Amino acid sequence: MTRTRFQQGLEDLRNRQLAMAGMAERAVALAFEAYRTRDAERARRVLAQEPAINAIEREIDELAFDLLAMQQPMAGDLRFLLAVIKITADLERIGDQAVNIAERVLGLAALPPAALPPEIESMAATTARMMQSAVEAFVRRDPALAEGILELDDIVDQLNRKVFADTIARLGEHPEAAAQAVDALLIARNIERIADHATNIAEDVIFWASGADVRHSSHS
Amino acid sequence: MTRTRFQQGLEDLRNRQLAMAGMAERAVALAFEAYRTRDAERARRVLAQEPAINAIEREIDELAFDLLAMQQPMAGDLRFLLAVIKITADLERIGDQAVNIAERVLGLAALPPAALPPEIESMAATTARMMQSAVEAFVRRDPALAEGILELDDIVDQLNRKVFADTIARLGEHPEAAAQAVDALLIARNIERIADHATNIAEDVIFWASGADVRHSSHS
Repeated sequence: MTRTRFQQGLEDLRNRQLAMAGMAERAVALAFEAYRTRDAERARRVLAQEPAINAIEREIDELAFDLLAMQQPMAGDLRFLLAVIKITADLERIGDQAVNIAERVLGLAALPPAALPPEIESMAATTARMMQSAVEAFVRRDPALAEGILELDDIVDQLNRKVFADTIARLGEHPEAAAQAVDALLIARNIERIADHATNIAEDVIFWASGADVRHSSHS
Repeated sequence: MTRTRFQQGLEDLRNRQLAMAGMAERAVALAFEAYRTRDAERARRVLAQEPAINAIEREIDELAFDLLAMQQPMAGDLRFLLAVIKITADLERIGDQAVNIAERVLGLAALPPAALPPEIESMAATTARMMQSAVEAFVRRDPALAEGILELDDIVDQLNRKVFADTIARLGEHPEAAAQAVDALLIARNIERIADHATNIAEDVIFWASGADVRHSSHS
């Protein structure tokens, strides 16, 4: 494999990673929208999208593996390939969490309406922003932008604890709406997991970008 | 780096991976024991162990990275290195889940005693077995043993759904014990996540041992 073909492979890998990130972002946005509107139809569309996310994960992993196997990469390229492998796993798990949210929404849509913790809205908004920033940090190879995501994760964790406390209180007052309260609680946990995965992606971008200065030095 | 030094590096990596797996297994066993006995002291010991798990994760990642960077590995060694990198991430997340369980146990220990879903015991036992088998499959490079783990994951998922349904019913009958019920529900979810990570490890062993990618086939 010539260096040029290797570079084309890296470019191809980067484009597929971005395509996968877009799919994961759309799945999450659709799951949040399904929650907001208690819409079973939107929830089912999230479920229908999962196989495509899983398929592109396999493609990316195989391509990354081929690139690692076919040419001894320079340190910078190696960091990039390892970051891609890790980010891909996180994007796939984000897709899984979107599916989990959609399944809970299907549960909620079949139950009588009930008031749910208002903090879930802010959790969803903050988490969507974290995902967008994580992908942007990957595209721009921007460790400073990635650093900012780590702070947002604390906000999501705080909101999640508030949802938890609110739900306990609500369960005592409205035991008849226990199923809805538990659905909301689990949705909040799923959102918190998505924020964790966005944080992992940010850390992988930092790992990749921080090796910038060794790229052209020792290992070529 | 000579082939021999490279082989020594692989052996060192394997030993550290096993050490980390042992740490994660002990953290999980201690968290389950803390749950069974509602013992805040045991729960705090789980929290105290987390930094060591995170530290060995970093060591393993750095060593794997150095081995990838310093010598173009043969396909089999490359598979092993990628499997180690992925397994390490799963072991670290298993450690996180043990911490989450321990935090819930601290909550439970501060609340009046309440009956909790009995299925959590079987979930914990099955999940502990999955982790042991996953590590054993890694040690023996045994894809057949790893395959068996994928089936156990379905059992844990079923038990988790049963805990969920029981908890909803219990919340309606005993709203005064809502906090304990929610703690138990979240502990069940954490156990289910540990089973998922054990399944991921089994899949990585299969990938390493056979070259086949079993993710997202019938068992996912």
